[in-house]
Amino acid sequence: MKLVVYEREGRRGVGILEQDDRIRPYRLTEAEAAQGLQAVIEAKLAGRILPLADVTIALDGVRLIAPFPHPRRNIFCVGKNYYEHAHEFARSGFDSSATSGAVPDAPIIFTKVPECVTGPFDPVFMEARVSAAIDYEAELCVVIGKGGRGIPKSEVMAHVWGYTAVNDVTARDLQAKHKQWLIGKSQDSFCPMGPCAVTADEIDLADTTVQCWVNGELRQNANTRDLIFDVPTLIEALSAGITLLPGDLIATGTPVGVGIGFNPPRYLKPGDKVRIEIGGIGRIENEFQELSAQRRKGSAA
Amino acid sequence: MKLVVYEREGRRGVGILEQDDRIRPYRLTEAEAAQGLQAVIEAKLAGRILPLADVTIALDGVRLIAPFPHPRRNIFCVGKNYYEHAHEFARSGFDSSATSGAVPDAPIIFTKVPECVTGPFDPVFMEARVSAAIDYEAELCVVIGKGGRGIPKSEVMAHVWGYTAVNDVTARDLQAKHKQWLIGKSQDSFCPMGPCAVTADEIDLADTTVQCWVNGELRQNANTRDLIFDVPTLIEALSAGITLLPGDLIATGTPVGVGIGFNPPRYLKPGDKVRIEIGGIGRIENEFQELSAQRRKGSAA
Repeated sequence: MKLVVYEREGRRGVGILEQDDRIRPYRLTEAEAAQGLQAVIEAKLAGRILPLADVTIALDGVRLIAPFPHPRRNIFCVGKNYYEHAHEFARSGFDSSATSGAVPDAPIIFTKVPECVTGPFDPVFMEARVSAAIDYEAELCVVIGKGGRGIPKSEVMAHVWGYTAVNDVTARDLQAKHKQWLIGKSQDSFCPMGPCAVTADEIDLADTTVQCWVNGELRQNANTRDLIFDVPTLIEALSAGITLLPGDLIATGTPVGVGIGFNPPRYLKPGDKVRIEIGGIGRIENEFQELSAQRRKGSAA
Repeated sequence: MKLVVYEREGRRGVGILEQDDRIRPYRLTEAEAAQGLQAVIEAKLAGRILPLADVTIALDGVRLIAPFPHPRRNIFCVGKNYYEHAHEFARSGFDSSATSGAVPDAPIIFTKVPECVTGPFDPVFMEARVSAAIDYEAELCVVIGKGGRGIPKSEVMAHVWGYTAVNDVTARDLQAKHKQWLIGKSQDSFCPMGPCAVTADEIDLADTTVQCWVNGELRQNANTRDLIFDVPTLIEALSAGITLLPGDLIATGTPVGVGIGFNPPRYLKPGDKVRIEIGGIGRIENEFQELSAQRRKGSAA
């Protein structure tokens, strides 16, 4: 099942995607709809059946927003989780974690703040005075359903609600400068997400494509079968001493082909369009734009 | 002004501490009180005067809980922000960030998940199968009032609502193993906080003591004047491209004297009591306890 969160006539809605071009909305209160898919996940865990509308609406008549417009806490993200990317990143000189070789012995986990999430087709803002080295990272993102602590690998899939796609946008200069990656990864609007979230049964983790194009040029083209630490390993490691919660998001890492993998690096410029496509989920596309003085002033209010 | 969040007769309250032993409660709805000091900060920003009760209650008749029982997003934390601590950490062999010397050139920022916050006198739970190297870190924690992006150093103090004290409890083995520090820092119950939060006028950042005792033995004894990156520098760096929000918390880093600074390291054991005291704020004290099988099972439900 594919679910979308959208805005239509000034109101937010959550619905099921039917035949890829129609949405069947859930009947939700305004407060529930504001939460996006979080409301659907929590209703399911509570054993509550959410009523569906009798009619469907056209997908092209709505504005899709992120399935989790405001995640409940920072998004967990995995670093260097594909072999070839681990090597390109280590070679780039930007890797403050490379004290013991390019390929990690254990999952590298950092976070992005919830407020950097933006819609699947919304602009990503860059500000030259803050970063001169902005890069893309196509990633499959796990959505946790039932929470838990000490989840063994064998039971992980009972805790996975489903998946979405994210662009783990990164300011490479800030990532290197601050050693820990939070700042370089959490800049405002640095987490495009969507276009939908799919339930776990829609994705075969042993064979799902992860692709990324910049201005139509294919840059990343990989498969989740090549993850260094697979989803069960990631969730076992995270949940060993941290209680996972319904709606937690885990971006599983990006494959080879990011901008710093080139020599010289190919950073994003204003006007660039980055398209990410994950098999079974669909595609997001975001234009990178210079942050205007007017918008900057507004966000500081 | 000192503010406390507490539980009394099964209800949560927020109040002003008077003469260090009486609380004058705000009159809040249950939903407001659930937010702790977040409700007070947001009311102030909205220009709303929160009514106070006519009577006071005795401090020793309540159970103090964390001033921010559930922070709005992960807590921002600063690594290696006192010179002597930066050197002891680099020497310990646990520092995955030490690719370019012990003392950082820019603030190192990572996060702790909001749900690891616990009360000022509550137990901290350790599980031997997860970590065998648990350590304490006494820290002054900044509370953001008015949010903003691109805040210059000269304007930072207009955005600081006040301060509280935290123990940035750390699993050193996990901190080293996973390179990025999120997992080692975010284990359940790893952020004792309190006993109160104080408004900005109560603290002189050029002269505030930060102390820590383990079972009565003084281990850390420093002053915020020795921070490598002072509070204006931290907030300028964080807010350059990340919009700070009311109620954001920034733990400013710990001074020399942590357990891994000793040779051999002196990790915490079940039964140890860690007391942290920050001048002008007060003291928190937490007993470290082995997580029982019963409690572990409960948290995974």
